[in-house]
Amino acid sequence: MTDGDRNLNLDLDRRRRLGMVEAVWGADKTVEQILAAAHRFAAAGQPLLVTRVEETKAGAVRQQLPELCYHPQARCLTMGPLPTSPWRRLAILTGGSSDLPVAAEASTALACHGVAAELIADVGVAGLHRLMARLDHLARFPVLIVCAGMEGSLPTVVAGLLPQPVIAVPVSVGYGMGAGGHAACVGMLASCAPGLCVVNIDNGYGAAMAALRILRMAKG
Amino acid sequence: MTDGDRNLNLDLDRRRRLGMVEAVWGADKTVEQILAAAHRFAAAGQPLLVTRVEETKAGAVRQQLPELCYHPQARCLTMGPLPTSPWRRLAILTGGSSDLPVAAEASTALACHGVAAELIADVGVAGLHRLMARLDHLARFPVLIVCAGMEGSLPTVVAGLLPQPVIAVPVSVGYGMGAGGHAACVGMLASCAPGLCVVNIDNGYGAAMAALRILRMAKG
Amino acid sequence: MTDGDRNLNLDLDRRRRLGMVEAVWGADKTVEQILAAAHRFAAAGQPLLVTRVEETKAGAVRQQLPELCYHPQARCLTMGPLPTSPWRRLAILTGGSSDLPVAAEASTALACHGVAAELIADVGVAGLHRLMARLDHLARFPVLIVCAGMEGSLPTVVAGLLPQPVIAVPVSVGYGMGAGGHAACVGMLASCAPGLCVVNIDNGYGAAMAALRILRMAKG
Amino acid sequence: MTDGDRNLNLDLDRRRRLGMVEAVWGADKTVEQILAAAHRFAAAGQPLLVTRVEETKAGAVRQQLPELCYHPQARCLTMGPLPTSPWRRLAILTGGSSDLPVAAEASTALACHGVAAELIADVGVAGLHRLMARLDHLARFPVLIVCAGMEGSLPTVVAGLLPQPVIAVPVSVGYGMGAGGHAACVGMLASCAPGLCVVNIDNGYGAAMAALRILRMAKG
Amino acid sequence: MTDGDRNLNLDLDRRRRLGMVEAVWGADKTVEQILAAAHRFAAAGQPLLVTRVEETKAGAVRQQLPELCYHPQARCLTMGPLPTSPWRRLAILTGGSSDLPVAAEASTALACHGVAAELIADVGVAGLHRLMARLDHLARFPVLIVCAGMEGSLPTVVAGLLPQPVIAVPVSVGYGMGAGGHAACVGMLASCAPGLCVVNIDNGYGAAMAALRILRMAKG
Amino acid sequence: MTDGDRNLNLDLDRRRRLGMVEAVWGADKTVEQILAAAHRFAAAGQPLLVTRVEETKAGAVRQQLPELCYHPQARCLTMGPLPTSPWRRLAILTGGSSDLPVAAEASTALACHGVAAELIADVGVAGLHRLMARLDHLARFPVLIVCAGMEGSLPTVVAGLLPQPVIAVPVSVGYGMGAGGHAACVGMLASCAPGLCVVNIDNGYGAAMAALRILRMAKG
Amino acid sequence: MTDGDRNLNLDLDRRRRLGMVEAVWGADKTVEQILAAAHRFAAAGQPLLVTRVEETKAGAVRQQLPELCYHPQARCLTMGPLPTSPWRRLAILTGGSSDLPVAAEASTALACHGVAAELIADVGVAGLHRLMARLDHLARFPVLIVCAGMEGSLPTVVAGLLPQPVIAVPVSVGYGMGAGGHAACVGMLASCAPGLCVVNIDNGYGAAMAALRILRMAKG
Amino acid sequence: MTDGDRNLNLDLDRRRRLGMVEAVWGADKTVEQILAAAHRFAAAGQPLLVTRVEETKAGAVRQQLPELCYHPQARCLTMGPLPTSPWRRLAILTGGSSDLPVAAEASTALACHGVAAELIADVGVAGLHRLMARLDHLARFPVLIVCAGMEGSLPTVVAGLLPQPVIAVPVSVGYGMGAGGHAACVGMLASCAPGLCVVNIDNGYGAAMAALRILRMAKG
Repeated sequence: MTDGDRNLNLDLDRRRRLGMVEAVWGADKTVEQILAAAHRFAAAGQPLLVTRVEETKAGAVRQQLPELCYHPQARCLTMGPLPTSPWRRLAILTGGSSDLPVAAEASTALACHGVAAELIADVGVAGLHRLMARLDHLARFPVLIVCAGMEGSLPTVVAGLLPQPVIAVPVSVGYGMGAGGHAACVGMLASCAPGLCVVNIDNGYGAAMAALRILRMAKG
Repeated sequence: MTDGDRNLNLDLDRRRRLGMVEAVWGADKTVEQILAAAHRFAAAGQPLLVTRVEETKAGAVRQQLPELCYHPQARCLTMGPLPTSPWRRLAILTGGSSDLPVAAEASTALACHGVAAELIADVGVAGLHRLMARLDHLARFPVLIVCAGMEGSLPTVVAGLLPQPVIAVPVSVGYGMGAGGHAACVGMLASCAPGLCVVNIDNGYGAAMAALRILRMAKG
Repeated sequence: MTDGDRNLNLDLDRRRRLGMVEAVWGADKTVEQILAAAHRFAAAGQPLLVTRVEETKAGAVRQQLPELCYHPQARCLTMGPLPTSPWRRLAILTGGSSDLPVAAEASTALACHGVAAELIADVGVAGLHRLMARLDHLARFPVLIVCAGMEGSLPTVVAGLLPQPVIAVPVSVGYGMGAGGHAACVGMLASCAPGLCVVNIDNGYGAAMAALRILRMAKG
Repeated sequence: MTDGDRNLNLDLDRRRRLGMVEAVWGADKTVEQILAAAHRFAAAGQPLLVTRVEETKAGAVRQQLPELCYHPQARCLTMGPLPTSPWRRLAILTGGSSDLPVAAEASTALACHGVAAELIADVGVAGLHRLMARLDHLARFPVLIVCAGMEGSLPTVVAGLLPQPVIAVPVSVGYGMGAGGHAACVGMLASCAPGLCVVNIDNGYGAAMAALRILRMAKG
Repeated sequence: MTDGDRNLNLDLDRRRRLGMVEAVWGADKTVEQILAAAHRFAAAGQPLLVTRVEETKAGAVRQQLPELCYHPQARCLTMGPLPTSPWRRLAILTGGSSDLPVAAEASTALACHGVAAELIADVGVAGLHRLMARLDHLARFPVLIVCAGMEGSLPTVVAGLLPQPVIAVPVSVGYGMGAGGHAACVGMLASCAPGLCVVNIDNGYGAAMAALRILRMAKG
Repeated sequence: MTDGDRNLNLDLDRRRRLGMVEAVWGADKTVEQILAAAHRFAAAGQPLLVTRVEETKAGAVRQQLPELCYHPQARCLTMGPLPTSPWRRLAILTGGSSDLPVAAEASTALACHGVAAELIADVGVAGLHRLMARLDHLARFPVLIVCAGMEGSLPTVVAGLLPQPVIAVPVSVGYGMGAGGHAACVGMLASCAPGLCVVNIDNGYGAAMAALRILRMAKG
Repeated sequence: MTDGDRNLNLDLDRRRRLGMVEAVWGADKTVEQILAAAHRFAAAGQPLLVTRVEETKAGAVRQQLPELCYHPQARCLTMGPLPTSPWRRLAILTGGSSDLPVAAEASTALACHGVAAELIADVGVAGLHRLMARLDHLARFPVLIVCAGMEGSLPTVVAGLLPQPVIAVPVSVGYGMGAGGHAACVGMLASCAPGLCVVNIDNGYGAAMAALRILRMAKG
Repeated sequence: MTDGDRNLNLDLDRRRRLGMVEAVWGADKTVEQILAAAHRFAAAGQPLLVTRVEETKAGAVRQQLPELCYHPQARCLTMGPLPTSPWRRLAILTGGSSDLPVAAEASTALACHGVAAELIADVGVAGLHRLMARLDHLARFPVLIVCAGMEGSLPTVVAGLLPQPVIAVPVSVGYGMGAGGHAACVGMLASCAPGLCVVNIDNGYGAAMAALRILRMAKG
């Protein structure tokens, strides 16, 4: 196979076009591919986010490039200084503690863009009082990212109670019928609550970028 | 095809064995088949319930056998006097008015067995206050049948708030991903609420018989 | 079935809570149910939107309540005066002319809330030049709703080129593998473009309400 | 990610509300998360049930907190003394010996609530005489939990023969078409036996809680 | 489109090769196509079976070719004299009366080949005594064709009790999860009974031909 | 909805870019939409192909625009003179006569581009001798389009015997498991024959355009 | 969990009822469970077949009970002397060498019952000449078991050419669409060849028992 | 199991019939089976391609037969000298670097037949400018193989812009809804671009053989 394109076609232009740090999907990449991407972006003076990197792979990468920072719960590598004083703040809700890695991926991706996320964990609908007690607090955030596995009712209940943009993230927690986040995902799409937005199962990064698009637009 | 069994093998023994009125699934039966079943049970002095009978088919049946009674919302035919003074009372909740035919099928099937059902309609989770305002009232019923389409969150929320047996009935209302009640059904099975029982999509009759088994057992 | 709730439990509070006109899913409702809802909201002095109403059903409703207005392409009934001078404007893109009914449902739902929608039709990716020629024009809108059937690539291409919030609406156009909008929906969820939001297949109303949440939040 | 909720939002109120011991889904939790939950409930003087804990994870937990008890077949950890004299007794049937872990999970969950379970194993329909010989014995139990994999016919046959509440648990035993318990689950939902209740695949805990709701209600 | 093959490529050789009457799948054929096939086989002096012909289409065909005989329950047309004295006899069992059209298609296809079928109807597992009472009678037949819809348990129970070849035919009776015969079909494939053979949903013709292959082979 | 694009965005450039006549998917279009497209292309002096037009809709279109020609078996409308002397010839094979409408759609689409198609019908694998007898004839064509429903084995057998490009078209003939062409489509994708190309179910037009791309390329 | 049935309910009666050696599904059993079953059948003087036993598990079993014999390709354990002179002989065909383990499971199960199987390997349809060259040889066998993965065309082609009973076994070889034997299984069910019988994916044991039922019946 | 065919039925005739090097699917083969095949083809003086061979299995094979060459990215073994001067050149496009193994499998398979492939990597639609900048270069290739995972839009966009044969290869990159290449595959089949050909998920070999058939035919 001759290679018509000696250089990797990394999308060095994404930052200018979309205002987003380049993000690399790390799950199907080798250590070498991640290092190559990091070197390219470092050379271009650009930051980088690598998602879905398991701990051992992250260690192997960081042995070569120690300036990359690993976020273990989020399973992300970041390169370049993260903005220190956030220009905006939103809330990430989770149904249970199994949803935390997805919430952390969203939070890390937002932090790369100067957006702070406050975590409101374990407010699933099986114990509804936990959510009801926080409604006034939640009303203050411009955007709500809501992560839930199992049957995934939480975003529906939230979007029926509060008027902000709600980004629903199905989480691959569960088993049997609807395993792998399938029940949560089709439930969120079929939701009776008006105006719920859905991203793919476990897609914390996607939820963060959707929130970023909204916050940027609101900023004008 | 020689017919080794001249007579239809109707389960004339079900009533003795299970304490249930024989129920015939009417959707795939011809008018002639429904009439034949009715004559057999009438001859045996037994009542009969026929479910899923559309209005025109019901009319054709009743032209031959006017003593059958048609319940249009429930799409059921009943034969024989229904018990007049119910020995027990339960509640049937629905998320929206599209769930009413399924609730009515359950209610009619219960009425055949002397159980009264109180309908608590339109308490879907998109407007949660409607449910919260009725919690004390709901707490008085020994069994709750909860019908919901779309994402089907209602039984999960109910079973997280109340300790009674909750029978969840997914309803084939909705469209797109999860159409035909699929999202509701897998969501109810995958529910994070402990001890939710599920019957098939639109199976109001099945929910009623499950409730009857429970009420009979409690009666001792 | 005794009815514990004489009155329909319509969510008369939704407008206050979410700032949204009450919307009734008309597909599974009878003419009588739609009329009952309309009378209740009229009595409460509130506007109403009924979606998925076929032409003949709409005619039967309007014979009783001529003040309802029918929007044939959107298959919607509206009650109450629509806001005349929009406070905000967004764009709705479609891949082909088969997507127009879904776009029209979104547009009508937005119009009920004082948001104007400009239609950019027939810019599907099979003839990419049609989209590329309009990029500068599209860049001016705060939110983009993108409707597409078949393989549903259009929102992915748009979200890769432009930084605004993009709400992807899969449309049930197509056949064979991926029929009923399935290919478009899973493709939009699996999209490689960062931050795409997805609503259910054909859910023009949901896309409109998601856009409304975003625009309201931006307004502050 | 700032954490708006320093403390885990464990549902310490569930016991009062539903009369159920708090149960934690252990499969997606780390050893640390399980320990944290155990400490919280110990501090509140409440018992705890952790389901789906593999042997090695259980060992790591018990090294820190030896007062937790591990039930290897049920793959459950329990904390706090189990009620010693059961107030009620039910039967758990299995089609084959592969269903035993699911039956054991149900049994352990019931034991936490003072309900004893008698196991009637290996009575699958491929050798029907094994079930028929036990009908009189089975008739004495107030509730029957029936676990079956493969095609999952056993609950249907049982519910056609006996009048008690029957809770059907599909088990993820099988392969090929209908693998993962899918055939058993859809078969139980589609069952021709009247009033069968279904819980999710392998959900022994859910079946136990459904039985508990029924037994509690019957107790009055 | 030029037609390289002026004549329809009917398989006039099938009878010699497989010993089977040619069978035409009528559902997707026009009246003209059925007539053309009939004329070709009549010219070749061969009998013909046309399956899945609705009553009105059959009428239109018979107006042109009255020597074709219509079997309304089986929805089949046959051409040519059926063998009058059967050389073999088997049994066709059905779970309920909704399975009768499929049983009749099998019976008609067998009759074309000189095999008589005795119908044992309504022996579904929800009332197991009906089957148990006929075991001795069933033991006399060389082959059992067993048709069942819903959860489709009947062939599993039969094959666990009797040693003959059992051909399981899932029937498209049912609704919700497992609708269209899906639950019955995957259940029969996943059956715990040893040596069950399965044909496609509603494929009475296929079951008949499978039985014919077995009976012919046994004849030597 | 304001319309930012007064004119329909028809892809008038496709012919220059891809060398293909513009094709309109007629199934989801109204008579008015088809007429509007036809007028636009007529004004541009371009031919047009409209696929999936049922007979009555075609009649309504032709009443307004009689110069459109209707091809009933192919369910297509064509506008503009078809090339009279074909520059190339290929073969279209079908498994059975139910596949003919799909073969005719392919043939009509090819005819619009000056390619002649010879139909080799009814050579399905259930009677393999019909195919084997034509192998020498088939070897002469540069491209083979092979249409098959049911289990869809024909393209696999053909591609194992002959070295030309083989375009497999699954056809929505069949029922039960694999209905709607699903079995044929996944079977063709999973084929053990090397180098089979697959298009969507019933996509005769797509197969024709794939063949056109190949023939054009070969022409140089 | 109290154990109402001290003894495992092994089906010691199966041999008398169905004439089949008891077979235990080994995949979900522990070494202890397999040993317990073996001891029970040894005590009853009955042979035993254990299927789906991986090499290491088989070794652990044989360390305790060396009289069990392991068949590595078939992944089966057998106990008790196998019949030495077969009373009947059939043929097992495979499409490719990946199908051999399934063929070997069928062969081992038949050997336990005194039936010899001749293996005709690698006759898949991608190289059809290999099958055509063996037709006369195949015509001599009373029953044909045909194993195939990928698109699974082989049984269809065989059943179109030969008149014997054909038992089709889909094999879980393949990938992508139709992976896990799904394409083969739905293709065999949807087959256009008349009278094909299908068993579950990889179910070599089931195919053997179906063949045994046929051969026994033919024996009279 | 007696083996009626002492020798493996390798398709030694494929090269003459189809002009293709024999390819063995290595994933389900043991080291011994691969060695046996290699010896057979070596004895026949024919080259061989073995696909889907993981590194360790390849090492074990090469320890016995060092003349086999391993291509690690493509996970292929080749035997026999590859043609040195290619007679034709085509392009393989990938959406991202995760698609490279599939592209490499295609490239290796083509190299075995004297066709050179130029790799155009990382031109996915999320950064469309990368593709647009290469259109003139792409226009020079006779055939385009386009590999893409996630939502798989790239082949649709390419086939809408360029007139050559386009072979779309869905790649099993992605997660959640549409995982395993499902979204890409159904999207490519449902594509709105005219004349796209699809092969199975990850089937680089199949795409190569489809391209070879086209190039051979064009050669005449």
